[in-house]
Amino acid sequence: MVIDSNFYMSLALKEAWKYQGLTYPNPAVGCCVVGENGELLAVEAHQKAGLPHAEVEALKSAYYKLTNDKIILEKEISADIHNYLIKNHNNIFQNCSIYTTLEPCTSVAKTPACANLINELKIKKIYIGSNDSYQNDFNYDAEFGILKQECDELLEPFNLWKKDKFVFFKCAQRLDGSTDGLVSTLKSRKNVHAMRDVCDLLVIGGGTVRSDRPILDARLVDGKAPDILIYTRQKEFDKTIPLFNVKNRKVIISDDLSMIDGYKNIMIEGTKNMMKLTKDITNFNLYYLHLADKFDVLNAKKEDIILWMK
Amino acid sequence: MVIDSNFYMSLALKEAWKYQGLTYPNPAVGCCVVGENGELLAVEAHQKAGLPHAEVEALKSAYYKLTNDKIILEKEISADIHNYLIKNHNNIFQNCSIYTTLEPCTSVAKTPACANLINELKIKKIYIGSNDSYQNDFNYDAEFGILKQECDELLEPFNLWKKDKFVFFKCAQRLDGSTDGLVSTLKSRKNVHAMRDVCDLLVIGGGTVRSDRPILDARLVDGKAPDILIYTRQKEFDKTIPLFNVKNRKVIISDDLSMIDGYKNIMIEGTKNMMKLTKDITNFNLYYLHLADKFDVLNAKKEDIILWMK
Repeated sequence: MVIDSNFYMSLALKEAWKYQGLTYPNPAVGCCVVGENGELLAVEAHQKAGLPHAEVEALKSAYYKLTNDKIILEKEISADIHNYLIKNHNNIFQNCSIYTTLEPCTSVAKTPACANLINELKIKKIYIGSNDSYQNDFNYDAEFGILKQECDELLEPFNLWKKDKFVFFKCAQRLDGSTDGLVSTLKSRKNVHAMRDVCDLLVIGGGTVRSDRPILDARLVDGKAPDILIYTRQKEFDKTIPLFNVKNRKVIISDDLSMIDGYKNIMIEGTKNMMKLTKDITNFNLYYLHLADKFDVLNAKKEDIILWMK
Repeated sequence: MVIDSNFYMSLALKEAWKYQGLTYPNPAVGCCVVGENGELLAVEAHQKAGLPHAEVEALKSAYYKLTNDKIILEKEISADIHNYLIKNHNNIFQNCSIYTTLEPCTSVAKTPACANLINELKIKKIYIGSNDSYQNDFNYDAEFGILKQECDELLEPFNLWKKDKFVFFKCAQRLDGSTDGLVSTLKSRKNVHAMRDVCDLLVIGGGTVRSDRPILDARLVDGKAPDILIYTRQKEFDKTIPLFNVKNRKVIISDDLSMIDGYKNIMIEGTKNMMKLTKDITNFNLYYLHLADKFDVLNAKKEDIILWMK
């Protein structure tokens, strides 16, 4: 394996995919910091809207690795990290490079601009995957297009949110295809609840609602419950089914999938039957597979395998 | 993500798993070389018996990265790489560390001992995952037990070969569970042929033989065809089915899975029905899944997802 710019960008990409979907309405972004002798200092990602951007997370980790200054670890708000780094960097980053899957932001929004931070820290070189259309007045040395195709694919859900909507199909199954009983591990279910927390609509089949009597909320992560579209031709439901009794939730019962219009971040949950029924109509963009009851021996963790697929 | 010994060992592990099974009868081993300032110089793995060990591949890559001396790239035989490195290293490795999933070999077998090479190159420190039971007279500075559990799991097929046999179940399926028609990409099929090339027995169901009329050889990689056990209660087969007409192959037709005894590296190929039928009897050790017609967006390659699972 060649250890080059592509290698570092692939580490940033891999970290970013762990939080794909969860960053809504922000893009998933990953970032590596590499020191003056080519030593890897940090690999981080943007984890959730409101939390620091990937570059800030990575520069925070790299600063700690270079200085051992524990004060930085207490800073969790993006502006605080920005300010602390700008005040205390002592030019330790001047021979460092960063690899970021997306061009750093240049305007102050909820958090200060990453491009400004990079400039202030006098980082030597910025390797960028996807370029945004910023008017960039900053004068850092940038190289664009590192693993551009892969970085653009990482950005696809974000671009779809901006344009119209991102629809993904989530399925949990065992290797033998079975889906009966409790399929996923607790960690895997928490991940789905975190995803529901950031979705504004969850689409589910009528049969599943009748047989499983689910709540379909995000209680495992103390999150908000998404609206529900029950896709069914039979409109009658027992309204004591828990999903009907969640506060601040709209439940739509319909056989018309165009009801998803107007929503931006939409998860369809189901098994292969639902996959077939909804594929052509919603033209969903990605699959999100939880391969349950089996684990990836590479990670040697007794956890389900979670994959994003096309 | 913390960039520490575990991180480097996990890179070595990940590279090694790519060649799991293919290294038979050798263990799958991965190795990283890290330079004096913590810069990553190489991540390599042992790929096939007869080819250089992981440490040799990694030191070759690291030497090239440090010296730009292209002559080393022409050396493909392990002894040649050993000799060239020992003659030309000029102490460039004296502040380097290596991370290897398995304790370096100490005795000269088909290839010279890795422990000797490490010693001669005066490598500063060796981080080791699984320890072997070598009588180690070499005086390098070693730290044992880095991601020991994960490194031991990587080694499991090798330990099973040594003790008795390693049995794995290979299945290819689409996300919706379907297996009809041509399921896998060419790259994925080549991988299976490479696996057959190193297997000494392939177990297949009678129904599949009758319906698919397969050859079950390793022609896509110019490899040798494994013996076949057709697991079936109906013993009559049309002997014009291509698998019966492959040279130097034994075909066993039996409903007794104890016929696998005596073989050491055994692949069962099939779908979920065969999985159910053989699971309890053969007690297979790992699953080898080719998730077809979908691809892992992380890699942005239009290739099947290939996973080892427990």
